[in-house]
Amino acid sequence: MAKQSKIVIIGGGACGPKTAARTRRLDASAQITMVQDEELISYAGCGLPYYISDVVKSRNALLVRDAAAFKKISNVDVLTATRVDRIDRSAHRIDVTSLAEGRQYSIDYDKLVIATGANPVVPPIKGINLKGVHVLKRVPDADEIRDLISGSISKKAVIVGAGLIGVEMVEALSTRGLQVTVVEALDRVLPGILDEEISDLLADHIKSKDVVLKLGQKVAEFKGEGDRVSHAVTDKETVEGDVIIFAIGVRPDSKLAKEAGLEIGPFGDIVVNEYLQTSDPDIYSGGDCVANVSMITGKKAFVPLGSTANKHGHVIAANITGGREKFAGIVSTACVKVFDFNTGRVGLGEKQALEAGFDTVTALIPGPDKPMYYPGNKEIIIKLIADRKTRRILGGQGTGPGDVIKRIDVLATAITMGMTVDTLADLDLAYAPPYNTALDVLHHAANLVRNKMEGRTEGISPAAAKKKIASGDDFTLLDVRSKYESDQSWIEASQSQLLPQHKLYEDMEKLDKSKETVVLCQRGGRAYQACCTLKGAGFKDAKFVEGSLTCWCADDVCGEPLL
Amino acid sequence: MAKQSKIVIIGGGACGPKTAARTRRLDASAQITMVQDEELISYAGCGLPYYISDVVKSRNALLVRDAAAFKKISNVDVLTATRVDRIDRSAHRIDVTSLAEGRQYSIDYDKLVIATGANPVVPPIKGINLKGVHVLKRVPDADEIRDLISGSISKKAVIVGAGLIGVEMVEALSTRGLQVTVVEALDRVLPGILDEEISDLLADHIKSKDVVLKLGQKVAEFKGEGDRVSHAVTDKETVEGDVIIFAIGVRPDSKLAKEAGLEIGPFGDIVVNEYLQTSDPDIYSGGDCVANVSMITGKKAFVPLGSTANKHGHVIAANITGGREKFAGIVSTACVKVFDFNTGRVGLGEKQALEAGFDTVTALIPGPDKPMYYPGNKEIIIKLIADRKTRRILGGQGTGPGDVIKRIDVLATAITMGMTVDTLADLDLAYAPPYNTALDVLHHAANLVRNKMEGRTEGISPAAAKKKIASGDDFTLLDVRSKYESDQSWIEASQSQLLPQHKLYEDMEKLDKSKETVVLCQRGGRAYQACCTLKGAGFKDAKFVEGSLTCWCADDVCGEPLL
Repeated sequence: MAKQSKIVIIGGGACGPKTAARTRRLDASAQITMVQDEELISYAGCGLPYYISDVVKSRNALLVRDAAAFKKISNVDVLTATRVDRIDRSAHRIDVTSLAEGRQYSIDYDKLVIATGANPVVPPIKGINLKGVHVLKRVPDADEIRDLISGSISKKAVIVGAGLIGVEMVEALSTRGLQVTVVEALDRVLPGILDEEISDLLADHIKSKDVVLKLGQKVAEFKGEGDRVSHAVTDKETVEGDVIIFAIGVRPDSKLAKEAGLEIGPFGDIVVNEYLQTSDPDIYSGGDCVANVSMITGKKAFVPLGSTANKHGHVIAANITGGREKFAGIVSTACVKVFDFNTGRVGLGEKQALEAGFDTVTALIPGPDKPMYYPGNKEIIIKLIADRKTRRILGGQGTGPGDVIKRIDVLATAITMGMTVDTLADLDLAYAPPYNTALDVLHHAANLVRNKMEGRTEGISPAAAKKKIASGDDFTLLDVRSKYESDQSWIEASQSQLLPQHKLYEDMEKLDKSKETVVLCQRGGRAYQACCTLKGAGFKDAKFVEGSLTCWCADDVCGEPLL
Repeated sequence: MAKQSKIVIIGGGACGPKTAARTRRLDASAQITMVQDEELISYAGCGLPYYISDVVKSRNALLVRDAAAFKKISNVDVLTATRVDRIDRSAHRIDVTSLAEGRQYSIDYDKLVIATGANPVVPPIKGINLKGVHVLKRVPDADEIRDLISGSISKKAVIVGAGLIGVEMVEALSTRGLQVTVVEALDRVLPGILDEEISDLLADHIKSKDVVLKLGQKVAEFKGEGDRVSHAVTDKETVEGDVIIFAIGVRPDSKLAKEAGLEIGPFGDIVVNEYLQTSDPDIYSGGDCVANVSMITGKKAFVPLGSTANKHGHVIAANITGGREKFAGIVSTACVKVFDFNTGRVGLGEKQALEAGFDTVTALIPGPDKPMYYPGNKEIIIKLIADRKTRRILGGQGTGPGDVIKRIDVLATAITMGMTVDTLADLDLAYAPPYNTALDVLHHAANLVRNKMEGRTEGISPAAAKKKIASGDDFTLLDVRSKYESDQSWIEASQSQLLPQHKLYEDMEKLDKSKETVVLCQRGGRAYQACCTLKGAGFKDAKFVEGSLTCWCADDVCGEPLL
């Protein structure tokens, strides 16, 4: 009989338990120990914002499995409330402290798995330790925030950081009735995740829910009344807040690994190869404490997610039981629900793509997620980014009340496989009226990119059109919507002229062919069509506003809001 | 200036109008004529069942664009109510009859596009012309059916054919309050579309809505009272019905093409190459009158869909204006909503895959479409089919109340690109609790296929398990659910034994290791886990029931239904 292998796993979040459970399935005899520094293991950390918002009513629902169940079902010894003090690589041993008893002892390993996750970044700014200032990582964090807002203690929240957790907390606290202000150091919500066009649309939606956004402001300190926080002070102003959520980002918890002399990467990540093996061949690592290879650039990116952590656990379990599985990498998919908007992204953003040396062609395109005649259809806005040379899809993003996430998943699959815009244009997506339009918005996006690549049409973004208007440029801003539509909502601009689409052929001579003509409509479709008509009629410089009024920032549209 | 090209398009459904509109965008000077044999053009034929069900209230909402608008916006001459009598290829001319005036004339073409669509198959059985017997193709068909069921004329419907349109009509008529019976000649609903496991689950759902399914029965004749239909007579029984929907399938409308000597394929389809060019280089064809190349087998398949027709139009427009675009083909994606179940499929079914010579490995796997703790999560059941040799995904199908269609779209994208189950297992799908579980059901399906390929586990289908039980085989049917769950719903079997998962390690010795052991639970996950435990403990022949009770046929589960 083979020697009984000693497997030790540090961390009981997502990657750790997944590794432990699968290791047992692959090796009936291994002695498996999982060490966790808190009481709970295997809880749904991603669900905490929804527990705070009361969408998830039961705390127990978030607890997937406890130590006793882990023992009974998978024969894994789980040491909770046990801190790992040191990894002794030469002795193949870890030193631990039982936090309840204070007892110190050692555990031998043949294979060690470090799944310590990531910690919220908390800079040492003044007032950070005041009561009411919180990060959100563990269940007790959520318990405390829930207590604060369930009682009548807190009425005004300041969320520092408009990343994924930040905006999830915007929804959570706002729906609980708090007045929410968001302070974000960068120029947009979900910076580093969304391009400007998509981020601005999401910001419009967040503002429509009476949330105050303070973008481009840095929190300098917190002020309190007694030991309780009362204000956040930024580099520009002071904001009232009796509960503060600090969510400016997370950093790999790689302290133990670093002290043990393992290689550490530029994100503070524990460096692993494609087998998720660290620089010590007997030590593996996965989950939020490692970075992942981007399948687009081949470079490492730090995108900590529970989904990836679970996949890591699957791979590590194979490799510590004699297998040889690879983790292929990621395409930086992310998604988040904020109020009524579904938002997602995958691959490279436009700026990232340019920085990586690609010659990008993009499309910004809105559309209903089901036919307009089918009840419950909702708007989605997609930005597609492709490479002119290879015609490969590099990235995609979207937001809106409609089913954005399905499109993001399709793009994630497409990008993983190196799909071109040509293949996307003909992609055989599932079509029936309850689910989709005959041509999906992704098909339209692919075709728009192709038409731009072929020089068949020229588009400009709403932001660029706005700049042209503001600069006082001499051009025609041609609105081809109906009179009724343009009475409902319109762009205030001296260059503006209305000529509804169905009158374009007959009244075209009223326009100046030699002048630059920028066409717009509601969503961009009619403007594109009109643009073709004008070019066919000899207009030298006709272009259309991609996404048109639907993608125009709400603040700059007069009349009724469009989204 | 180039010669003004004469483009003639026969058919005003989906492919025709798409071709016409894009042709205009690509060629400002072409003379474009579209000929349609009915009054309406460019209507949403796929929406007709929803107009009948009154989900879509307005008939006008289905009409995308009329002839006048087509002229004004795209400068296309549309001849409605005009029948094409003949294509004269040598003269490059079509002969037409204006149905209103009876006038006959000819139209010259440089390029001709045949987009005549498909017609419902109506065999000459007795009584087919009785009032109340309908097909559903055009808006007037829907108007007539609506009138029948809106008045108090019809109370009992018989739907002949359980294909896509058939099952859409089941929902439509049943929700309108009619007692619906479905007669289908083959052994299941959506035959040729769904494998047995998925079809049976959908059938269970349809039956739960008081719809009567008569599978494996052929309609022989219709009987009437006076000139109105009153009964459908099958080869086995007589069924009352005062409205009959005949939906046994459609066949390409290739009559004109055939008479003109164009090559016709085995489906009665107009044969086209990858440029959608017929055997006459000046004639193109697209939409429901052509077959498409399957990107999996490389062979032609007849899958008529509005989505594909639109893509065809896009390609044809390019090619008749001097371009050279290819239509890559299809992966046979289809989806349909029937009551509360979303159902879809893509690629090859298991039987088709076997017939095509693949060595298939499958997984049948249920799961919630969002985390169990997140409100509104719903069940989906996925069947994944892969090729053992290349590890490529060959097909996928699913049904259930949850978001099946997103998964079908992911699989459609994956199959188009030749993705393996290994890549699917790590696929970076969008994860956040409002949208998905950390590992998607597709990840689990891919991993189950891999584990089966590697010989790490053995699964059997619920149907196979049922057969074993019925045959009286001597084996242990081990239920590893809790006592509570097994009291709620159970399988009646002499071989059955209950041993909850958390007691498996301690009570395992009560089981006979040498006996074949078939493990089941609610969804299959615990059964799989238990199976690994048993094999690790030396059980020689342990396997688990894939999908377990969730995929068991409702009729054979005692107690509470599971879906």
